[in-house]
Amino acid sequence: MNNFTFYSPTYFVFGKGTENTAGQCVKRFGGSKVLIHYGGGSVVRSGLLDRVKASLIKEDISFIELGGVKPNPRSGLVYQGIDLCKNEGVDFILAVGGGSTIDSAKAIAAGVKYDGDFWDFYEGKPIEAALPVGTILTIAAAGSEGSGDSVITKEEGMLKRGAGGEALRPVFSILNPELTQTLPAYQTAAGAADIMAHVFERYFTNTEEVEITDRLCEAVLLTMIKEVPRVIADPNNYEARANIMWAGMVAHNNLVGVGREQDWASHGIEHELSALYDVAHGAGLAVIFPAWMTYVYKHNINRFAQIATRVWGCQMNFENPEVTALEGIDRLKKFFTSIGMPISFKELGAKEEDIPAMVEKIGLGQGGTMGGFVKLNSKDVEQIYRLAL
Amino acid sequence: MNNFTFYSPTYFVFGKGTENTAGQCVKRFGGSKVLIHYGGGSVVRSGLLDRVKASLIKEDISFIELGGVKPNPRSGLVYQGIDLCKNEGVDFILAVGGGSTIDSAKAIAAGVKYDGDFWDFYEGKPIEAALPVGTILTIAAAGSEGSGDSVITKEEGMLKRGAGGEALRPVFSILNPELTQTLPAYQTAAGAADIMAHVFERYFTNTEEVEITDRLCEAVLLTMIKEVPRVIADPNNYEARANIMWAGMVAHNNLVGVGREQDWASHGIEHELSALYDVAHGAGLAVIFPAWMTYVYKHNINRFAQIATRVWGCQMNFENPEVTALEGIDRLKKFFTSIGMPISFKELGAKEEDIPAMVEKIGLGQGGTMGGFVKLNSKDVEQIYRLAL
Repeated sequence: MNNFTFYSPTYFVFGKGTENTAGQCVKRFGGSKVLIHYGGGSVVRSGLLDRVKASLIKEDISFIELGGVKPNPRSGLVYQGIDLCKNEGVDFILAVGGGSTIDSAKAIAAGVKYDGDFWDFYEGKPIEAALPVGTILTIAAAGSEGSGDSVITKEEGMLKRGAGGEALRPVFSILNPELTQTLPAYQTAAGAADIMAHVFERYFTNTEEVEITDRLCEAVLLTMIKEVPRVIADPNNYEARANIMWAGMVAHNNLVGVGREQDWASHGIEHELSALYDVAHGAGLAVIFPAWMTYVYKHNINRFAQIATRVWGCQMNFENPEVTALEGIDRLKKFFTSIGMPISFKELGAKEEDIPAMVEKIGLGQGGTMGGFVKLNSKDVEQIYRLAL
Repeated sequence: MNNFTFYSPTYFVFGKGTENTAGQCVKRFGGSKVLIHYGGGSVVRSGLLDRVKASLIKEDISFIELGGVKPNPRSGLVYQGIDLCKNEGVDFILAVGGGSTIDSAKAIAAGVKYDGDFWDFYEGKPIEAALPVGTILTIAAAGSEGSGDSVITKEEGMLKRGAGGEALRPVFSILNPELTQTLPAYQTAAGAADIMAHVFERYFTNTEEVEITDRLCEAVLLTMIKEVPRVIADPNNYEARANIMWAGMVAHNNLVGVGREQDWASHGIEHELSALYDVAHGAGLAVIFPAWMTYVYKHNINRFAQIATRVWGCQMNFENPEVTALEGIDRLKKFFTSIGMPISFKELGAKEEDIPAMVEKIGLGQGGTMGGFVKLNSKDVEQIYRLAL
């Protein structure tokens, strides 16, 4: 096990009706002038925004609003948000929505405390300070409610980049599974694929002897395998929604990743897909991950056999573990298909002829590589895209 | 799944040599005058105390010391510590040791901020404020490094009682598995039993549909079953020590307990054993838990069959799940025996004739009960003690 630090200071409020505690939560963490940041119509139409406002009013907290966050959130709105907060003296940002809204709120929070261009952080500059961010989550997917990460797309060139740091961890996150019950099946499934992908990125490692982290990863995956088909069959299944929503947080606050080298190549490879075609990040991951696994599994057949037996319930083939390893990958593909996720470029609507441009945009150049488990160069990335056709 | 809040804001620093970051950690959390609180000779003899002091000196942090914490920590030393801190203007408490030292430090931290008798908190008064506490853990067991709980024994009547609250959560905890390598096998095994018991208290619940929490519980138990025999066989196995140490934190910061009713009868039943005979808490739990399980398993045979198959690898007997349930309990007993833990009064050195007095001291009286999974009255508790003979 490698040395590590783990810090997850977010206060989580979970369950039915918990959005009505938003005002108390903002107060607890010192907010007095709030920017409510959200996406589109559903937050308004469902009455959620009104309930949140009522909760703030009840605690005498003043607020302004900025809606309009899109999936794969854009830098343009972040600049708007930063100006708005600076002009209005906002001291707290409350994100009401999914990962895109939360990521956009985090970018604004960092930008308000910085005199330069917030995009600097997405080019690698460390984030030293940010306004406190609270969240009310409406989609189980990105895990941004418990992480210090944020991904923003710059309109100019549709450049999708991530930033992160302790200052970006939400001070509180309100998770009410009821709020996810109105999500279309496709979005629910894409969120589930995203959650599982966060575990895969941490599970495939060259660090040995991290049994506790392996087992925690497997706990999340086993939960997803049980619960996701239930919500696809019955969108109103509160219990299944609740298990998935909490699993989504656990999958990405890094508890299931500590003490080990992680991979993260597939996220980088996928980002070009969702940036180019504006598809759901989770759907892109459902396409990329099986291809990535097929390309790299020989690097550690036993690790792939382990996930196949422990998570997918495959019988171990002791004569030929490779058979088991491949069976696990096959089970993942069938699982994604069963919940309505694409597993190929064709199903996703991506095009073979765009592959060279996507490889180019990842920008590994001549000697560069990506990925901790297997170091991939541009040639490797191209082959993974082709395996996904 | 029940509504819940989860808050684990402790900053964890894990791995080899991490005690040398103590000074930086105290500084990060605002300490300037520190009470170093510890137990007996081993912290001094091993040179750990000197390394910690050197780390504080390096950051220009002043400190005083209070050693002498005993297992099942006593109120007398807590009173001493409170007076010392008040007289010397201490603003931060650094516990160097195991659960007893950390619990004693928490009691002092709460007492310093309170004008009355600190024992009030252990009689049920809510804790509203406490000095910040940091920890350097030397035994994987109590989970106090990541919890807001503290258990203290009042000398007068050897009354063992717990208190808890957010203010008692350590602001940082340093976990170096190397520090646990010199522990005798018996203490290592007792710590392991304590960790497993923290999971059992949360696993046996009447709340349905909490798959994610079940799976996280099982992840900790599976890790313990793999790693504990390895450290018993080879005390210097760093990797196994590391997995156990982190599992010990995960088992008790309540991540594996959220969203469900918990039990906690066995802890109460055990407390009388360790208070009366001054035995290791974990050893007492190894005696009580199999007896408790044998007494209550019929309340939910399927839940006991689930742990037997998922954790102990038993084959499910579909014709008669009770057989599987009982096999799981038997496997637990054999496991405890294999790591050198007692599973009976006899092995522990406890006496049958003391049972009535222990039952009396738990104080359930006429109509009182304890336990969330099965509500136990005094008669039930007595029978559980007798099952453990």
